Amino acid sequence: MAEFDEPIERLIEYFRQLPSVGKKTAQRYAFYIIENSKEKADNFAKAIMEVKEKVKLCSVCGNYSTSEVCPICQKRNRQIVCVVQEPKDIIAMEKVKTFEGVYHVLFGTISPLENRGPNDIKIKELLARISKDGVKEVIMATNPDVEGDATAMYISKLLKPLGVKVTRLAQGISMGSDIEFADEVTLEKALEQRQEI
Amino acid sequence: MAEFDEPIERLIEYFRQLPSVGKKTAQRYAFYIIENSKEKADNFAKAIMEVKEKVKLCSVCGNYSTSEVCPICQKRNRQIVCVVQEPKDIIAMEKVKTFEGVYHVLFGTISPLENRGPNDIKIKELLARISKDGVKEVIMATNPDVEGDATAMYISKLLKPLGVKVTRLAQGISMGSDIEFADEVTLEKALEQRQEI
Repeated sequence: MAEFDEPIERLIEYFRQLPSVGKKTAQRYAFYIIENSKEKADNFAKAIMEVKEKVKLCSVCGNYSTSEVCPICQKRNRQIVCVVQEPKDIIAMEKVKTFEGVYHVLFGTISPLENRGPNDIKIKELLARISKDGVKEVIMATNPDVEGDATAMYISKLLKPLGVKVTRLAQGISMGSDIEFADEVTLEKALEQRQEI
Repeated sequence: MAEFDEPIERLIEYFRQLPSVGKKTAQRYAFYIIENSKEKADNFAKAIMEVKEKVKLCSVCGNYSTSEVCPICQKRNRQIVCVVQEPKDIIAMEKVKTFEGVYHVLFGTISPLENRGPNDIKIKELLARISKDGVKEVIMATNPDVEGDATAMYISKLLKPLGVKVTRLAQGISMGSDIEFADEVTLEKALEQRQEI
């Protein structure tokens, strides 16, 4: 026997599919919907459908966008391209207000273990932009892990012969963190990439 | 400038209204919707709307129900009524598989501080059920705090003259908890309500 009536169970099930939402949390979300006005629920539902209707991928960089070309690609310097794994990484990078270039989303990394090769991510599209936009610098902002590093290296080797400067985000200790608690890999990177002051 | 395009911002805003959801979590939920299929999003939206259309309050006890009278009220012994503050408390109580009675939802407590008197919660409706269903016992399962206790006492005083047995859930140390960490009020209650073994 289901614990709740069918429509409630179904809503709980959908909430459970959201990232890191367990049964209890999903129940609380469902009850929030039940306890609030029909108008609010209808607007919530509409917002979910609308996002799927209106939000597409920018045809240049792959960022989420409601227009064919996203506002970043429309306005900023296309000769500097920051390469990220996922659209949400752009949001993180955009907190750095000083970056004036544009982005390129790979939609993943090269990963031999998971059978993803160079053709499974948007590397061809990146190469096409190099000549088309006269790209001068590509900043690799893939994650600082084995796959992110390998992908950055692979792309770097492709681009250097084309005369493009390829850089990688510095790896080191986080601002505000504590050296005492830093892991050894991070400390090693921080030492390797030490800066003269 | 909004950080995201309008439809994304709106969806994040709706997710933020869910209980204990902050900006970061709401963003992750919104991205989940964006990254998954349109079909899934549409079904999610439909589930939200459907719950508001189909789920009403049981006309007898106030529990959430898709029928005029909820399955519990339809099938179980109406002479034993467990009184709770909110419909979600019924879910918690229903984990106790041995309870064979029915429920009554007060939709709140008496709270002089928040200007809620006896007429602001479903006490009249409870009284009506006493004679109608020939209720023999009322189990007060309001929360073990000042307002829950006061509400239980108030209802108990109303019902006793009618010859109804009124009981209250026992208060004491939780199963599996540690006496070392129990607070003094809980320990005092546990001592007061100690049972011969």
